[in-house]
Amino acid sequence: MDFKLQGVLPPIVTPFKNEEVDLEALRDNINRWNSTGLSGYLVVGSNGEAVYLNEAEWEKTLVTAKEAAGEDKFIMAGCGRESTINTVAACKRAAELGADCALVITPSYFKGQMTPPRLAAHFERVAGESPIPILAYNFPQATGLNMGPELVAGLSQHANVAGIKDSSGNIAQLSEIVRLASDEFSVFVGNAEVFYPALCVGAVGAILAVANVLPEMCVELQAAYDAGGHAKAKKLQWDLAWPAALVTRVHGVGGLKTAMALAGYSAGTVRMPLSMPAPQAVDEINAAFKDLVYQGAEELS
Amino acid sequence: MDFKLQGVLPPIVTPFKNEEVDLEALRDNINRWNSTGLSGYLVVGSNGEAVYLNEAEWEKTLVTAKEAAGEDKFIMAGCGRESTINTVAACKRAAELGADCALVITPSYFKGQMTPPRLAAHFERVAGESPIPILAYNFPQATGLNMGPELVAGLSQHANVAGIKDSSGNIAQLSEIVRLASDEFSVFVGNAEVFYPALCVGAVGAILAVANVLPEMCVELQAAYDAGGHAKAKKLQWDLAWPAALVTRVHGVGGLKTAMALAGYSAGTVRMPLSMPAPQAVDEINAAFKDLVYQGAEELS
Amino acid sequence: MDFKLQGVLPPIVTPFKNEEVDLEALRDNINRWNSTGLSGYLVVGSNGEAVYLNEAEWEKTLVTAKEAAGEDKFIMAGCGRESTINTVAACKRAAELGADCALVITPSYFKGQMTPPRLAAHFERVAGESPIPILAYNFPQATGLNMGPELVAGLSQHANVAGIKDSSGNIAQLSEIVRLASDEFSVFVGNAEVFYPALCVGAVGAILAVANVLPEMCVELQAAYDAGGHAKAKKLQWDLAWPAALVTRVHGVGGLKTAMALAGYSAGTVRMPLSMPAPQAVDEINAAFKDLVYQGAEELS
Amino acid sequence: MDFKLQGVLPPIVTPFKNEEVDLEALRDNINRWNSTGLSGYLVVGSNGEAVYLNEAEWEKTLVTAKEAAGEDKFIMAGCGRESTINTVAACKRAAELGADCALVITPSYFKGQMTPPRLAAHFERVAGESPIPILAYNFPQATGLNMGPELVAGLSQHANVAGIKDSSGNIAQLSEIVRLASDEFSVFVGNAEVFYPALCVGAVGAILAVANVLPEMCVELQAAYDAGGHAKAKKLQWDLAWPAALVTRVHGVGGLKTAMALAGYSAGTVRMPLSMPAPQAVDEINAAFKDLVYQGAEELS
Repeated sequence: MDFKLQGVLPPIVTPFKNEEVDLEALRDNINRWNSTGLSGYLVVGSNGEAVYLNEAEWEKTLVTAKEAAGEDKFIMAGCGRESTINTVAACKRAAELGADCALVITPSYFKGQMTPPRLAAHFERVAGESPIPILAYNFPQATGLNMGPELVAGLSQHANVAGIKDSSGNIAQLSEIVRLASDEFSVFVGNAEVFYPALCVGAVGAILAVANVLPEMCVELQAAYDAGGHAKAKKLQWDLAWPAALVTRVHGVGGLKTAMALAGYSAGTVRMPLSMPAPQAVDEINAAFKDLVYQGAEELS
Repeated sequence: MDFKLQGVLPPIVTPFKNEEVDLEALRDNINRWNSTGLSGYLVVGSNGEAVYLNEAEWEKTLVTAKEAAGEDKFIMAGCGRESTINTVAACKRAAELGADCALVITPSYFKGQMTPPRLAAHFERVAGESPIPILAYNFPQATGLNMGPELVAGLSQHANVAGIKDSSGNIAQLSEIVRLASDEFSVFVGNAEVFYPALCVGAVGAILAVANVLPEMCVELQAAYDAGGHAKAKKLQWDLAWPAALVTRVHGVGGLKTAMALAGYSAGTVRMPLSMPAPQAVDEINAAFKDLVYQGAEELS
Repeated sequence: MDFKLQGVLPPIVTPFKNEEVDLEALRDNINRWNSTGLSGYLVVGSNGEAVYLNEAEWEKTLVTAKEAAGEDKFIMAGCGRESTINTVAACKRAAELGADCALVITPSYFKGQMTPPRLAAHFERVAGESPIPILAYNFPQATGLNMGPELVAGLSQHANVAGIKDSSGNIAQLSEIVRLASDEFSVFVGNAEVFYPALCVGAVGAILAVANVLPEMCVELQAAYDAGGHAKAKKLQWDLAWPAALVTRVHGVGGLKTAMALAGYSAGTVRMPLSMPAPQAVDEINAAFKDLVYQGAEELS
Repeated sequence: MDFKLQGVLPPIVTPFKNEEVDLEALRDNINRWNSTGLSGYLVVGSNGEAVYLNEAEWEKTLVTAKEAAGEDKFIMAGCGRESTINTVAACKRAAELGADCALVITPSYFKGQMTPPRLAAHFERVAGESPIPILAYNFPQATGLNMGPELVAGLSQHANVAGIKDSSGNIAQLSEIVRLASDEFSVFVGNAEVFYPALCVGAVGAILAVANVLPEMCVELQAAYDAGGHAKAKKLQWDLAWPAALVTRVHGVGGLKTAMALAGYSAGTVRMPLSMPAPQAVDEINAAFKDLVYQGAEELS
């Protein structure tokens, strides 16, 4: 790998205009993020509403992101599918389109059958056939399945399984994953509400919805931690927690796009069945982000 | 509608040979089912491993099933997608390919945002744009979401929402759905372990994985009920419960295909990440189905 | 046993006046219930707020109920405790105070340790040392633990485990329990929303909160079923479902006492931390019960 | 308060011999713990099997612990009961018997009714009537109920609610509780698998089952954190995590008593329905604790 699998990545949103993908808006956002300390971009992930895209849309979103991304930013592509063969195909296509690595969520439709051995077989075959390194994606809130430390530690032995994004919010588990996995395995936390504690127990980076809105603040938190500035990191964690909750578990992608608009990004709207937040929720989001967004703008100028 | 939305349907399996769809095997199975009392076929549903099919495979599976189906059998097509527009597109395509109605599962990736009003908006728009009647599909074990009686009763007012398949196994809920929904609304139970009690509280039919293996036994149970033969229906329910559990929640689609092979169907194998059952599970399935399959064969001859 | 373990029992409420047990009110209620077709009474059970009583209160409540009960009514006493020895002690004391049988809920504080073998060991020791027959009580909504059919079937082999009250609402499970348990084992359903379907799959009776308010209607439902009157039983089930939900999962014991007051019973109030329902909930309860209570009064006069 | 509500406390086990409370063993253990850096003792808590004690046993266990405790150790008594009045009575009795503060678990039998306002009413009345400060105890794994940050922050305004023990393991929540609660409010973490990250986000101490076995190691972790030794704290956290899991969520109180015996404590056995671990589990526990216990003994000598 010619990039370092660490640091802060936003799972970039896919802007829609009248329910159509708005590639120009996507390009504008990336241009702006390029001047920040973000390490890279997760494209066509959960917050990119990838489950709402058809194949052609998935491809052109990825291509556009790759083209717009700064040279110092790596591209992680959401490639998880329910079947193993479709997942392999997505990884191959993502590689052709310029992705540096692939994020693969646990297949979950037949949850009752997705035992650790079945999940291990899935990830190992995908890793074996993918031309680019893969990261496992553990997101129990969406999938109803959890990948425990032993399963992940086993996968970390595979040369082409480069890391994991753990969005469970379970810090005991994340700590055990770091402890048990191979040394080169990169553990990303996927939940901004536990970003600082995740760093404390060994995460090397984070993939955070709120980094779409407040990239510098997220980068600053990790920089503070890296420099031993625990007091500052804790302060930033506390400032970040509730705004981050609002644009994820509370108001979802619609909330995230609302906060992005407040921060001057071209976020567009969501696709149905999602909806943009009701006026009261918009007020709540604006109140929570107002000072942070302004602060961020100051710092950038 | 020129067919009656009631009776027993199998959610027909999609046979695979070396992980490729085996249309010939599919045709053979349907030919055999055509001579039974089944009302119709659910094609490309959960047990059809629809989540593992690409678009072309989805289409040819549906086309083949339509061609092979007897004239007295209606075709229900699994058309649920995460986005509303993709769901509408699937319903339109299914209609073009000959489906009589569409089964639409609740979108569930962003569970936290799928409030009853959002689900209602989704189903109403799909119903409004679909050329064929739709049925809602409630399957909390896979989606992590439940459709309550009030939500369903509201949807039942829409002229193009013809019914529901409720696989929750929750009979109190199914009873309330029947009680509160409009009179023409067809409630199917999707769980063989509660088939008879579901009929008692007002279900008009069932969509049952085990009906792939034991179609006549399932049809007979409903016929007994319809004729007031409660003792016989209860006896059949008891005989059916454990075998049905084995090919659903216990061993999944791999278990179902194993039992079908025992009964002489051309079931093929499953796609990864699913797997066929281990030898011990195969023995368990064979033991549970042996007498029932033989009995069924007798009755048919 | 000199009584038949079947039919409808109310889990009788414990009336409080200024948070003190009101034995006179208890006696009044029982006197009125004595003239109905109820089989017996469950005393100091969940709806009797037994978890809020100290030992002396538990005893005098049980003694009073025993004294007031009609000769044709049997007394079931709630005797579950977290430890096995305390449960045994409660069964012995209940026997001394005149109880005919004991209802023993699954211990659940250390849920993670309460494996089927531990639960089996608990119930077997209690059964072995109790002077009166015991029934297991499965109430996952309160305990977070479920007793599956295999565990229950095993216990049914013990001569002093006379039955089960299953309040899970899971009819597939109840059906399997009936099928697998020994012949003399009495399965009671503990959830009025599935009373009729439970009878269809083999329950011999029910222990229903709503039977505190509408004893005759509950008795009538079972009588209709016993006489083969499925249409009438289904109609009664539908009429009963929502009112029953209101006085259990929706508004709890406070809701139940509100409905009892409407029906002329001396229900008193609840103990903290429970509370009596807010005015809007009272209106909802009154609206749901008004016609049924009146009807019941008519029938009795 | 004449003691500081912070630092490490073990929830001390109640030793049983032939299912009877063994006060001598209890005294021996406390004598040994007195020479460590533990802040105090939680007596008759979850790991003290308080739910298995009758009232007389609860009293004599508390009295004995108070008598044996060193002068620099404070006594926290488990006083939670299902009813508010019984909880108040327990707090009063604990105060009479010398407890310095009371730990009050959320009542949970009627989970569906235990809304935040009802829980607030419960805790406020208990705090108002208790002669000693109370701490709320959040233990969703046992109770099936969670106390969210807003509820806890509200309670923290009450002068006699001195803190909380949060055993949820949810670090995002613990962080928000610290952030939102009043300044003097003491947040203890109740889960050793997240001890270090809990300190990072503001916990002032911990109540840890594993501190029964490895008191010095737990105390050392907090001392390292307090001195800014993050690397050492992280190392100790990793060493502690799996052994701690073994004596809590994996093998429960039986596992804890097994590890205590290995470390030379007089732990006795558990009460039924709990059981001591099977031989294989004993081996697993011994393997995990062997080096740590020896190390601890060295340090003490």
